[in-house]
Amino acid sequence: MPSSPVRASLGNERLWAFEEELDERAGQQQQQQKVVLGVDGGGTCTTCVCVAAPPPTNGDNLPYLSRVETGCSNYNSVGVEAARRAIEESMASALKQAQVPRSAVLSVCLAAAGVDRQVDIDAYRAWMSEVFPQDVEIFVQNDSVAALVSGTAGKLYGCVLVSGTGTIAVGFNEAGKFARASGGGPLLGDQGSGYAIASQALTAVMRAEDGRGPPTSLTGAILKRLNLSSAEDLIGWVYEDTSWARVSALVPVVKSCARDGDTVARGLLENSVSELACSVKAVVKALGLDGRDGRNSFPFVMVGGVLENDNGWDLRRPLVNKILGMFPGAQPIISKLEPALGSAMLAWSRYEDRHSKTAQPTTEHGALGIV
Amino acid sequence: MPSSPVRASLGNERLWAFEEELDERAGQQQQQQKVVLGVDGGGTCTTCVCVAAPPPTNGDNLPYLSRVETGCSNYNSVGVEAARRAIEESMASALKQAQVPRSAVLSVCLAAAGVDRQVDIDAYRAWMSEVFPQDVEIFVQNDSVAALVSGTAGKLYGCVLVSGTGTIAVGFNEAGKFARASGGGPLLGDQGSGYAIASQALTAVMRAEDGRGPPTSLTGAILKRLNLSSAEDLIGWVYEDTSWARVSALVPVVKSCARDGDTVARGLLENSVSELACSVKAVVKALGLDGRDGRNSFPFVMVGGVLENDNGWDLRRPLVNKILGMFPGAQPIISKLEPALGSAMLAWSRYEDRHSKTAQPTTEHGALGIV
Repeated sequence: MPSSPVRASLGNERLWAFEEELDERAGQQQQQQKVVLGVDGGGTCTTCVCVAAPPPTNGDNLPYLSRVETGCSNYNSVGVEAARRAIEESMASALKQAQVPRSAVLSVCLAAAGVDRQVDIDAYRAWMSEVFPQDVEIFVQNDSVAALVSGTAGKLYGCVLVSGTGTIAVGFNEAGKFARASGGGPLLGDQGSGYAIASQALTAVMRAEDGRGPPTSLTGAILKRLNLSSAEDLIGWVYEDTSWARVSALVPVVKSCARDGDTVARGLLENSVSELACSVKAVVKALGLDGRDGRNSFPFVMVGGVLENDNGWDLRRPLVNKILGMFPGAQPIISKLEPALGSAMLAWSRYEDRHSKTAQPTTEHGALGIV
Repeated sequence: MPSSPVRASLGNERLWAFEEELDERAGQQQQQQKVVLGVDGGGTCTTCVCVAAPPPTNGDNLPYLSRVETGCSNYNSVGVEAARRAIEESMASALKQAQVPRSAVLSVCLAAAGVDRQVDIDAYRAWMSEVFPQDVEIFVQNDSVAALVSGTAGKLYGCVLVSGTGTIAVGFNEAGKFARASGGGPLLGDQGSGYAIASQALTAVMRAEDGRGPPTSLTGAILKRLNLSSAEDLIGWVYEDTSWARVSALVPVVKSCARDGDTVARGLLENSVSELACSVKAVVKALGLDGRDGRNSFPFVMVGGVLENDNGWDLRRPLVNKILGMFPGAQPIISKLEPALGSAMLAWSRYEDRHSKTAQPTTEHGALGIV
């Protein structure tokens, strides 16, 4: 069987040039390893993993054939062209690393930030269909869904809170009903996101500078990090490149200042905790995950740089306390798998679901939580 | 005297083509009317007025030879090229309307939003020097200074609060000391600006939609104004064009909802009033405008669309009450002159100041408050 019947004119040809080499060796191979691709496209970077199909059953330690990171693929932040380029580069590089052509891909799941509406999904799916051979299954959804699945070993149930550059809370109940809160990006007030935290910190520096707000150690710490000499220089800095990731990269500075006792920094992180809890509450209530008595058990997955315990002031502990105060049955989960692997899980389980009538899945894949 | 010894290759030649016609008629004229240009470059539009020099003494009713409006010239919002184009178009059109060539301009004052640092001033001045003949005096400053002068009949004394698309408070004391608060633009949290109000209103709609916040009539009113069918559509709308003026154009909708009793809309306007008062307080305190006993008299000029009484919920009254509560000596002024005329006043007074040793100003110009 020839290994690469791809439409060579489609996609960015340069990226896929490696397939010709594979073609030349195709005659020697017995059978091509089939794979699935999981893509996690976020506001900071895009990660693609290539996983052998069928994947092994142990969801806690899903091995991959290759893993690649490229740039931001939230098209609301960087535009459609740059987003697609980051995604295509991540997929091509992952397949090249794994030495597998597109024709061996059973299924791709693109879980991307900024994908919110059916029109977003349709546009991405149409474009992905141009990049891959016709029989490759393509699934597109918001990146938060992959994040949920990465914490529930493949099961689409419970609530996930993502707080990286942006923030979103989504969830599914047992009946498959979906709900979300936040996720509109910086211009629609995603309170509790890395961007919001960093942006409020910059504002606090300006307020301290002109006398509207109290002095804060954020001033010295942020200026030092950005190698600027005065608060006024922030105006030039902030408008010379308005990409969201650039601003949210200041979150560790804010966490350090809060850890060291700065009340302004601590105040805005405490406010972020309240806002994040507010998003989770909205999703849990919309889905009734807490049950009639408010004590039902459900997975509560936390993902994203803001919630990582990175030696600064820890947002996670007060957040979990707040959530457990409202919902004693919530099971806090720090996912051991990265969202890109959750995306690969969805790629496989949905592929299997589609093909279950013609080819019954073997029981050993059950642990992946076919939906 | 030939009327147009301009360097024809400089500036955008197409804009200045009218000068050739004027050149042809130059021989018939006795003497070219000298003029000054005042430019007010804001986040929503750019206004240029052409005023005969010397201007008449009545500061409350400064007549102009021509007046032109072009697009936004805050380069932090639209970029340097678009900002310069808007400014040059406004100046060329104003001179064309007045039938005056560049060689008849004594002085130009460009008062522009986004001009904050010495580097901004130097860059604009260098560019303006390329557009005008060498002996034209060029003054560049933040637009708020022209707004102050428009309310004080030319005197650089007191405090001005501008709240349009952006917001800034600046002031001068008797000793000529300058202070400012806010003015960093949306990314640095200009609370109380039109952009901030509208952006918070959009956020309130998202919060109402996903259950984080209470229902609000802002949802129906904003979707109707934007001709969208659901709150989710706002995500697409807000990122398809991120110009600030487009967002802040929603302020009248917020004011209407607040006037009609919507508590969410009213809450965020009340918060804006507090933030604007906070900016004014910072400037007054930094300059000691209120004096040792806190009761000194000083002009408090209010400018900008947000503070206009336009049939919606009125921000101005509670703001003035708040300011008078803090500073009983503040003299609230709604400028009768638009900021572009303030800019023209500065163009003239500074020109006169520069030339006062060689040509003593006549007393009749004293009312313009030569500084």
